[in-house]
Amino acid sequence: MNEREWIRRLRTRAAGADHLVLGIGDDCAVLRPPAGTELLVTTDLFIEGTHFRRRSAPPRALGWRALARALSDVAAMGGTPLAYFVSIAVPEWAWGPWLKDFYKGMAESGSRTGAVLAGGDTTRARTLTADLIVLGHAPAGRALRRDGAKTGDAIYVSGELGVEAPGKRIRFEPRLALGRYLLENRLASACMDVSDGLAMDLSRLCEESGVAAALASPLPLAQGVAVERALTHGEDYELLFTVPSRQRVPATFNGVPLTRVGTIVAGKAGRVTLDAKPLAARGWDPFKV
Amino acid sequence: MNEREWIRRLRTRAAGADHLVLGIGDDCAVLRPPAGTELLVTTDLFIEGTHFRRRSAPPRALGWRALARALSDVAAMGGTPLAYFVSIAVPEWAWGPWLKDFYKGMAESGSRTGAVLAGGDTTRARTLTADLIVLGHAPAGRALRRDGAKTGDAIYVSGELGVEAPGKRIRFEPRLALGRYLLENRLASACMDVSDGLAMDLSRLCEESGVAAALASPLPLAQGVAVERALTHGEDYELLFTVPSRQRVPATFNGVPLTRVGTIVAGKAGRVTLDAKPLAARGWDPFKV
Repeated sequence: MNEREWIRRLRTRAAGADHLVLGIGDDCAVLRPPAGTELLVTTDLFIEGTHFRRRSAPPRALGWRALARALSDVAAMGGTPLAYFVSIAVPEWAWGPWLKDFYKGMAESGSRTGAVLAGGDTTRARTLTADLIVLGHAPAGRALRRDGAKTGDAIYVSGELGVEAPGKRIRFEPRLALGRYLLENRLASACMDVSDGLAMDLSRLCEESGVAAALASPLPLAQGVAVERALTHGEDYELLFTVPSRQRVPATFNGVPLTRVGTIVAGKAGRVTLDAKPLAARGWDPFKV
Repeated sequence: MNEREWIRRLRTRAAGADHLVLGIGDDCAVLRPPAGTELLVTTDLFIEGTHFRRRSAPPRALGWRALARALSDVAAMGGTPLAYFVSIAVPEWAWGPWLKDFYKGMAESGSRTGAVLAGGDTTRARTLTADLIVLGHAPAGRALRRDGAKTGDAIYVSGELGVEAPGKRIRFEPRLALGRYLLENRLASACMDVSDGLAMDLSRLCEESGVAAALASPLPLAQGVAVERALTHGEDYELLFTVPSRQRVPATFNGVPLTRVGTIVAGKAGRVTLDAKPLAARGWDPFKV
């Protein structure tokens, strides 16, 4: 199989999607996002040894996860996925069935959300390195941002924290429906996904909003997970959002618990406390030195 | 420097750009493309050892080139760049001044074309791997595609072929103005950039269009370059386009020669001849086995 044949295989997947004028096979893909929307763009690296281990899961599950991580960013903005692009550097061992299954996993993860494969780049390398680019849309001016939290807002998180700790949950559902629900009902003043641990991600949200946060126990911990682990554990892919105090938030959405975990308070931008004790903004930071 | 500080530095670059509602620092970037346009998307990997060698050029020149390669894809569609995203896996040796200069080079290359840095992803890895994503726009329904060439169309190429052969021309100008000129004047029936060698790229254009091509000597070769090299040499980043026979093409555009190199003919889709001799569709193919 050479590059041409590989691309020919991929092209058959993208045929007939809404909003995709021209997919794989030209210099650029051409998209026509729905009228009245703004475009959302996110890119997520997925690298062997850094973000996954080859033997940790079958390629289909890893492909699902690679795309779901990027879809989670669109969920965090309250957006709807439109298309995805895959730039991938492929080592010898992955060329063939492994790669086909990896793409199958991405296609499965994408097709549940309306995202179609619309392009990318492929080359060889020693380490499997994939970059997942997702384009989505949200009503103009309405995307959920990190910078809207106000003093007095309630802080919520979806699902359970630290859930991957014992047994790896490779395939996860990005919280797209929840993000859209928050946007459509104007419930959230700020929102992001928890990908680097609650402590660090909440600190980031507060920094963007120029506020501080007071968390209060108990946090919605996954079974058997210690608080410390849940606070600093990356890759939860739950939504963290703030809600003006006049708003009511249901206890669950589509069966997923929505738990109040604290309150936005005045204070040094980015400062986070748990039961009045300061938390270090620790978590997954590939550049921490 | 940790990831937060690094991102803080990058953010200052993107401030105040047209069409960029929200840049670096949230889960997604938010863009508002101009009304009446379609969106163009391209991704290009730039990997140490595959696409460049660390010591072959200063990081600023390499950064320029990394982005210019992706901008060339937008040029090939007749588009106007809007924003770019950089996903980058950084080894130890590159962290610090090298990386800053690499981003400086991209910013220089981007700012000449209106493209601003709007997001991306950063992590560590053993091999420097960058994925350059460029978003652009073109008037709806008017983007220059590969699939419009018709029997009887003249085949043109801009500039000179094989120009990098002796001394590497690292910084090059993507042919954005030429692409827009072709689009605005409805001159081209099909267009692409020459990135994998004229023989292979013309074969691809013909395959998409369901036609064949007859090239005729002399080709516009760079000084001292053999025909064989010019045909199969990757990374020319000139535009290859076809023109209906009723149209007139100027001899130069902005000082860049536009040379007629052949004619679109009926025949097996993708077949290319030079002076009536069949050419193998050879060139840069990372997956050729």
